[in-house]
Amino acid sequence: MTTYTLPHKDFQFVLHDLLKVSEQDIPGFADLDRDFTAAVLEESGKLSSDVLHPLNAVGDTEGCTLENGVVRTPKGFKDAFDQVREGGWTALDVPEQYGGQGLPYVLNTAVNEPMVSANMAFNMYQGLTHGALSAILAHGSDAQKDTFAPKLASCEWTGTMNLTEPHCGTDLGLMRTKAEPQDDGSYKVTGQKIFISSGDHDMADNIIHLVLAKIPGGPEGIKGVSLFIVPKFIVKDDGSLGDRNGVSVGKIEEKMGIHGNSTCVMNYDGATGYLLGQEHKGMRAMFVMMNEARLGVGLQGYAQAEVAYQNAVAYANDRLQGRDVTGAKNPDGPADPLIVHPDIRRNLMDQKSFVEGARAFTFWGAMLIDRAHRAEDAQADGLISLMTPVIKGFLTDKGFEYATAAQQVYGGHGYIEEWGMSQFARDARIAMIYEGANGVQALDLVGRKLAVDGGKHLMGFFDMIKSFIKENEGNEALKSDFLDPLKQASKDMQAAAMYFMGAMKNPNNALAGSYDFMHLMGHVCLGYMWAQMAKAAMEALDNGASDTAFFETKIATGRYYMARQLPATGMHLARINSGADTVMALEAASF
Amino acid sequence: MTTYTLPHKDFQFVLHDLLKVSEQDIPGFADLDRDFTAAVLEESGKLSSDVLHPLNAVGDTEGCTLENGVVRTPKGFKDAFDQVREGGWTALDVPEQYGGQGLPYVLNTAVNEPMVSANMAFNMYQGLTHGALSAILAHGSDAQKDTFAPKLASCEWTGTMNLTEPHCGTDLGLMRTKAEPQDDGSYKVTGQKIFISSGDHDMADNIIHLVLAKIPGGPEGIKGVSLFIVPKFIVKDDGSLGDRNGVSVGKIEEKMGIHGNSTCVMNYDGATGYLLGQEHKGMRAMFVMMNEARLGVGLQGYAQAEVAYQNAVAYANDRLQGRDVTGAKNPDGPADPLIVHPDIRRNLMDQKSFVEGARAFTFWGAMLIDRAHRAEDAQADGLISLMTPVIKGFLTDKGFEYATAAQQVYGGHGYIEEWGMSQFARDARIAMIYEGANGVQALDLVGRKLAVDGGKHLMGFFDMIKSFIKENEGNEALKSDFLDPLKQASKDMQAAAMYFMGAMKNPNNALAGSYDFMHLMGHVCLGYMWAQMAKAAMEALDNGASDTAFFETKIATGRYYMARQLPATGMHLARINSGADTVMALEAASF
Repeated sequence: MTTYTLPHKDFQFVLHDLLKVSEQDIPGFADLDRDFTAAVLEESGKLSSDVLHPLNAVGDTEGCTLENGVVRTPKGFKDAFDQVREGGWTALDVPEQYGGQGLPYVLNTAVNEPMVSANMAFNMYQGLTHGALSAILAHGSDAQKDTFAPKLASCEWTGTMNLTEPHCGTDLGLMRTKAEPQDDGSYKVTGQKIFISSGDHDMADNIIHLVLAKIPGGPEGIKGVSLFIVPKFIVKDDGSLGDRNGVSVGKIEEKMGIHGNSTCVMNYDGATGYLLGQEHKGMRAMFVMMNEARLGVGLQGYAQAEVAYQNAVAYANDRLQGRDVTGAKNPDGPADPLIVHPDIRRNLMDQKSFVEGARAFTFWGAMLIDRAHRAEDAQADGLISLMTPVIKGFLTDKGFEYATAAQQVYGGHGYIEEWGMSQFARDARIAMIYEGANGVQALDLVGRKLAVDGGKHLMGFFDMIKSFIKENEGNEALKSDFLDPLKQASKDMQAAAMYFMGAMKNPNNALAGSYDFMHLMGHVCLGYMWAQMAKAAMEALDNGASDTAFFETKIATGRYYMARQLPATGMHLARINSGADTVMALEAASF
Repeated sequence: MTTYTLPHKDFQFVLHDLLKVSEQDIPGFADLDRDFTAAVLEESGKLSSDVLHPLNAVGDTEGCTLENGVVRTPKGFKDAFDQVREGGWTALDVPEQYGGQGLPYVLNTAVNEPMVSANMAFNMYQGLTHGALSAILAHGSDAQKDTFAPKLASCEWTGTMNLTEPHCGTDLGLMRTKAEPQDDGSYKVTGQKIFISSGDHDMADNIIHLVLAKIPGGPEGIKGVSLFIVPKFIVKDDGSLGDRNGVSVGKIEEKMGIHGNSTCVMNYDGATGYLLGQEHKGMRAMFVMMNEARLGVGLQGYAQAEVAYQNAVAYANDRLQGRDVTGAKNPDGPADPLIVHPDIRRNLMDQKSFVEGARAFTFWGAMLIDRAHRAEDAQADGLISLMTPVIKGFLTDKGFEYATAAQQVYGGHGYIEEWGMSQFARDARIAMIYEGANGVQALDLVGRKLAVDGGKHLMGFFDMIKSFIKENEGNEALKSDFLDPLKQASKDMQAAAMYFMGAMKNPNNALAGSYDFMHLMGHVCLGYMWAQMAKAAMEALDNGASDTAFFETKIATGRYYMARQLPATGMHLARINSGADTVMALEAASF
């Protein structure tokens, strides 16, 4: 019942009017002109609307099944996966030597968004594969790269990431899975891993599991964890597939959402594994992909809000209910469409202003990753590391909140599965949990990232905002609607950071405010994006852009964000400033 | 996997230390002494924990099924329903002449909370019955009361409310179901109704549908709607059951949650119905039960948060993950329990301080209903009418938010259905939608209730807060932690109300802020409850109460609410003050 359409104009606006990608001095960016990105986005949008989205409800309803040790994906998934593969969508940003197209990550991110909006559970099969591939490219030997990278790039084989065990998620130092060295240099991996997305399925010839495990005799805790490549089928020297390895599916989890993805309990029983990177440095190997992986999850958050928003708008225009209090808008009909009602608009504007801000923030983050990697820019690397927990935590919290808000527009129909709005909310919910639960993101942000390099990256971010405000202070069109609220929000964020600095004596004062800080910073980031987007839209209008409605809508949406969303910073600051006393007051037994 | 235990001390605290029920000059309240409420609550808690809660997951997993026109409830439901019936739990507050116990509604509310926490979908069978019974008692003829009331009071027969049709929910004036008068004084009801909770099932001998329909030739729109009693089986003059009536189940809806309740499409095909109340006054008959019904839904919101919170606390104490940054709390174990981490506590304190505040607010509201009905107090009636949309809208929004927050404590396990936390969130979600979607509650509050009797009830509420602050201004223990924040929040609410008064020229300015006002007022109400609870707890300690830990925890939890939740009023005020311009700026086509 739901539909998805790529918001083409908005993508182009972010890439070209805001980020001006083709003008960036980053290797490979000169090719990203308007025509090129338009062509790629159009194809990705078409695939997403016509092939992937119709399978979204199918995936939810059918789910994955385990029969005699074999996982079956929902009807139609395999055909669609073949189409994604054949279209080359799995390897846009993979180096050409491994069969990819070597394009920037920012384009890969843009191309990915519609696929995630259209069918998040389906997209995870390729998303996890991309993650595994990145790990192998970053840490593998040449032989490992040659063996695994081309197959993963094309998704002929898919990948998984195996971290969690029944008794340990965030605290991986408690891990029990062990990897015993063999005479031939390989390892025998034994243990149980849970919550393994895309753990097994019927859409690829082989599955390459990346598994964290401990080599007996190594250091205690997290310092003794290594990373292993464990293929479902052993790959023979000539590249052909040999015996089934000692890894099997224990069960498929019944989840709140993303039913189309097979979330498996994986049992390793003396499975043959190959060390990836160095012994006992498994976490380092994992962490190197973290900025990308977490940005990808942040994208899932707002991408679900986007598709939910699109359907809420359609319903609000279509459903006739009540009358505009200022006068009928559909006098010949039995009632006016829902969209005339101020509170429906308030809800839709909350959604719209969030999603568009989140898209700009995420694409900007992706460009920072490109700048860090392709231009080896340490400042960009520091900045994106600072932003990563905010992208992941804030965008997934808000993405779920607004997917739920979109569901609300449907009234009772929003609660009925047949209408499809419940699925968006249920699917979006996982993004707040996996790839580091959002509380852990907040801890990473406040407990680690703020202080990196003496707070240099945080200061750098404040300076960017200050410079932007200063550069534009003569711009009356921006001043009261954009610059003033941004300045206030940024001041709130600085005050919170100052409070944390004073809290060094009692780290709980900072940690008790970490979640609020993540949200406070998220609002400042989106406010900063909106101020820049408003400026870019005004410039486009000044330059005689023909699509005036688009740019005027962009500015009006920005005004909404600044007036109605940004004031949340004051509330978060008040919560932070109240310190840890009320948070930590109770004995554990008194809860 | 989940458990539920009635928080006995907290119930008694609210009933006796805060509300001092047995001292109220309301008929029937003198009986509500501590021993009596303790005994009733203990039995209700036992039933909820031992009988109802174990069926919660069963209901979710099995759902209801329609076979050859017959609805089957999940395994165990019928036995449990018999136990509820036999215990007399369905008619505590029903007049004795109809087989009830004539007890106050506030006690009925308190007794209901554990049953809702334990199994919301199950509880709805009796909840809807109670609503139908109230309608018949309020509007029925003596013969109708005699025929239907005793059977509904005992839940030998159950009831439903039929309002919504496929094309109309909130806007019932668009209704198409018609009721044609017959020579014998009855009507033939024909049409389709949707979203009918408990529409059909196998736990009662008869089902009494209350159906809104239009009598042909009556006034247009909402003014031509009448209410009818349509029994599943015709009741013969001697009270025995006769023929099957012309009403059937079209289908059972697949919903996001409350699977244990049969939400039906009901088809009326010339079904025999009996006018309840006056012709064309059906909405009035419906509205008279609205304060109770909406209070009941608000209770569902926080009651789901309560059970989710209980389980989150247990998990946080049990799950070992990471170390307290200020020093290990479980040095001999592999890690510390989650509850040592400040952000976990922040989350749990948010939940706890909300739920306890919400309980106090709801029980207070129930007492106002008793005062309005039993003491015929018009002021109490006006006040509860003002509070009703806040109880319904704010408590269900927050209830869902905190059920989701409790799920987050479980990390990945929160997303797996087997652990039960997803169900609490999915079940809680409906309470934001039915019985008037929360946007409609906000509209009712701002568009209607604020101005009733020239704003008298709103002013009355402000006066109550002012008086409380004044009476206690010399109380240093209360001042900075409770009275000052309450004063500030109340000022924010007054400023918002003033803004709305100035917005009469442009009603959109008020309506665009209606949702924020509902939340702002919700926080003020809970802040007011917390200030009073803190005072009551301090008095108990001063009076030498032996359970000091309970009262100290109560005060500490209140401090948390005032410091960390109440500052939200400033954000809502800022949103309200920004007016309708940014909300209404876009053309409908520009969304």
